[in-house]
Amino acid sequence: MTSRRHLLTGAAAAGLGAAAGGGLVAAARSDTPTSVAAVESLTTGTSTVPFYGPRQAGVAEDPPAHAAFVAFTLPAGTDRRALGRMMRLLSDDAGRLTQGVPALGDTDATLAPLPSRLTVTFGFGTGLYRAAGLESPVADLPKFKIDRLEQRWSGGDLLLQICADDPLTVAHTQRMLIKDARPFAAVRWVQQGFRRSPGVQAPEHTQRNVMGQLDGTANPRGAEIDPAVWNDDGSTTLVVRRMRAEIEKWDILSVADKENAVGRRLDSGAPLSGTQEHDEPDFTKLDASGLPAMPDFSHVTRARVTDPSLKLLRRPYNYDGVPNAAGQPDSGLIFASYQKDVARQFIPIQQRLADKDVLNEWITPIGSAVFAIPPGCTDAGWIGDQVLG
Amino acid sequence: MTSRRHLLTGAAAAGLGAAAGGGLVAAARSDTPTSVAAVESLTTGTSTVPFYGPRQAGVAEDPPAHAAFVAFTLPAGTDRRALGRMMRLLSDDAGRLTQGVPALGDTDATLAPLPSRLTVTFGFGTGLYRAAGLESPVADLPKFKIDRLEQRWSGGDLLLQICADDPLTVAHTQRMLIKDARPFAAVRWVQQGFRRSPGVQAPEHTQRNVMGQLDGTANPRGAEIDPAVWNDDGSTTLVVRRMRAEIEKWDILSVADKENAVGRRLDSGAPLSGTQEHDEPDFTKLDASGLPAMPDFSHVTRARVTDPSLKLLRRPYNYDGVPNAAGQPDSGLIFASYQKDVARQFIPIQQRLADKDVLNEWITPIGSAVFAIPPGCTDAGWIGDQVLG
Repeated sequence: MTSRRHLLTGAAAAGLGAAAGGGLVAAARSDTPTSVAAVESLTTGTSTVPFYGPRQAGVAEDPPAHAAFVAFTLPAGTDRRALGRMMRLLSDDAGRLTQGVPALGDTDATLAPLPSRLTVTFGFGTGLYRAAGLESPVADLPKFKIDRLEQRWSGGDLLLQICADDPLTVAHTQRMLIKDARPFAAVRWVQQGFRRSPGVQAPEHTQRNVMGQLDGTANPRGAEIDPAVWNDDGSTTLVVRRMRAEIEKWDILSVADKENAVGRRLDSGAPLSGTQEHDEPDFTKLDASGLPAMPDFSHVTRARVTDPSLKLLRRPYNYDGVPNAAGQPDSGLIFASYQKDVARQFIPIQQRLADKDVLNEWITPIGSAVFAIPPGCTDAGWIGDQVLG
Repeated sequence: MTSRRHLLTGAAAAGLGAAAGGGLVAAARSDTPTSVAAVESLTTGTSTVPFYGPRQAGVAEDPPAHAAFVAFTLPAGTDRRALGRMMRLLSDDAGRLTQGVPALGDTDATLAPLPSRLTVTFGFGTGLYRAAGLESPVADLPKFKIDRLEQRWSGGDLLLQICADDPLTVAHTQRMLIKDARPFAAVRWVQQGFRRSPGVQAPEHTQRNVMGQLDGTANPRGAEIDPAVWNDDGSTTLVVRRMRAEIEKWDILSVADKENAVGRRLDSGAPLSGTQEHDEPDFTKLDASGLPAMPDFSHVTRARVTDPSLKLLRRPYNYDGVPNAAGQPDSGLIFASYQKDVARQFIPIQQRLADKDVLNEWITPIGSAVFAIPPGCTDAGWIGDQVLG
C-alpha cells in the first residue's frame, strides 16, 4: 500500500474528500524541488495503516519519516507460554495505537490520536525460537571482514520496528510497548532514525543519506516487491545493520571520486553510464578514456542483482548522534533490508560488498541483527500465533 | 513571520501559486484531527526564512519540527579578533544554508537544496564576552533548589540553535557549521529535539510534550511578542534548560491528579476554570466542593504572568533518548525561552515554580545555560559585528 493511497484514505476518513482532491503528481526527478507539483492535505497526522492482515505492516509501505528499532533480550527460563502472553499484549496494543486509539493501559492517552501512518512490525530472533523450543527460520550472519560489530548494537531475541511520520508518535508508541514487554524481556538496544519529513519530497522519492547519496534507487517497487520479499505464508526476514559513516574521510574526496565509489552521480543519482536516476546501469559502456563508465569496484556494480527474486527491499533510516568535543560526527545509516531468504538474497550481496566494494572505506558496520518476520494476524489473533500458539 | 506566510512564499517561489491556493484554515481546537480543514502544498522542503535583518531568525517564527542546540567552549586565549573571524565564517555559511545554498566549503552539497524553513540563531554566553574583554549583558542563573544540573548539559560560550522542518537538513547544517567553528572552539554539548512533524497539525497549534500536556498555550502571539522579546537594538536573550521528565512517576497519577498539577485539562488544554484551551484562567472560580477550580499549587497558577512585557516566549522541543535495560525512558523537554531580560522576566517565574509548583515532582532540570542573542546583521555584516566588530 503506497503512502499516496494512505493520504487519500486519510483525507476521506477526515471528511476532506473535496479539499484533498488536488491529487499527487510525482516529480520528474529526485529532489529537484521546483519540479514538484503536488498538493497534499493536512492529514499526515490522521493517516493510518491497517495492523491486521495476512502480512505484517511496516515492510512494503513507503517508509514513514521516523523510526525506532527496539531489540529485547529474553531472560533465561522464558518459555513458549510466556512468549504467547507477551505477544498477545504487544499485538493488542500495537493494533490500537496504529489506529490512533490509546493502548489498553495508556498512561498518556492524549498522545495516541495522531498515528501518522504508524506501523509496528515484530521480528523474532534465533533466541526466541530457542526459548520456544522451535527451530529458527533465520540464522546469525557470518562474520564479514569489514565488520567492527559492537555488542550494544547487535543481536536481540525480539525486535519492534516502530515507524511513523511523527516523532512524538514514535516516542509514545515506543514507551507504551516497552511497558508491555518489560515484564517479559529487557531492552537490549534502541536505534532511532529519520528520513525526510513528510511534505519535503513527494512520496516514494529516493532518499538521501547523511553522506549525500541517493540511497535505494534500485529497490524493488510495486509488483517487484512480492517475489523478493514475501513467502507464501506471509512471512519474511529482516536484517538490521548499523553502518557508521566515516564521514570526515568521505568529505575529503572529490566529487568525481565519490561518484566513482558509488557508481552514480551525486546530484541526480544517475548511473555513471546514464543520465537519469532510474536508467539501467550499462556495464559495457566505456568512458572517453576507454575505461568502463561503471567502475567494477563501485558500489552499484558490486551490489548489482538482476534476478528480481534476489533483490533486497531496503528500508534504511539515517541516524545522527552527538558529535565529540573535536566536532567529529557520530552519524550513519540504520540499514534495514527485507527479503524472503537471508542466506539466498542478503548474504551473497553482502559478501560481494565486503570483498571489494570501495565504499567499505567510508562505511563501517558496527551493529548487526537478523530477525524472522512472522506473518500478520487477524484481529482475533496475535503476531506469532501461528508459530507460538 | 508565520509559517503560513512561508508556505505561500515557498509555493510562489516554486511556481505553484495556483496549486497552493487552497489556503490554510486553522482547526477549531487543539489536535482534534477531524476538524482540520487545511490544504498544504508540497513546499515544506523549499520554504525559507530570511537570515539577514535587524533581528535574528529562529525566535519569533512558528518553531520548525526539528532542532539541534549546539554549545561550544572557547579555548583559553581566544581574543576578540578570533571571535570576529569565527562569527564571520559562521554567519556567511548560515546565510547560505538557510536559503538552500551549499556552505562555502560544503562537502555534501547535495544536502543543501531543501532548507525546510531552516534557521540558525547565534547566542553568546558570558565566557564569550569575557574573552572579548566586554561586559556580558547576561549572567548565569542563580541555583534553584529543584536543580540537579549536569555539567554535560550546562553552560557554553557560544550557542547555535539550528531549526528546520526536516531532520536531515538539521544534521547537515549542524555538521557544516561545526566544521566552521572547530578551529576556534570545542563542542561542549549538543541537544537534539523535536515537535510534531510538518502537516501533522496546523501551523501555530500548541504542541504536546512527552508527558502528554499541551505546552505553550499562554505564549505571547502576534503583536504580544515584541514587548516581551525584542530590545530596541534587535537583541534578546535565551535560556535553555534540559528538563528530564520523571515520566514513570507521572504515569501512576490519575488523570484528575495530573490535571490538578498542571491546572489544565489534559485533552483540550482548557484551564480547570474554563472549557476552551485559550480561555483565560479564572482564579476566583470555585469548584463543586467549594475549593478554587485552579489549585494554587498548579503549574498554570504558579507560572502566571499578566503584564505582557513580563511574558516568556517559550520555544521548547521534546527529546527522547534511549531507555535503559529496565525500559525506563530518558525523555523530557529542551525548554528554550526567549525574553528581553532574564533577570526581570525569567528568574521571577522560575523562582515561583521552584518554590511551590507541584509539577516539580515530575520534572527535573538537569541542564541550564543562558545566552545573549545579539541583533541580526545585513548581508555585508555578520552576527555579532555590532558587539565584536
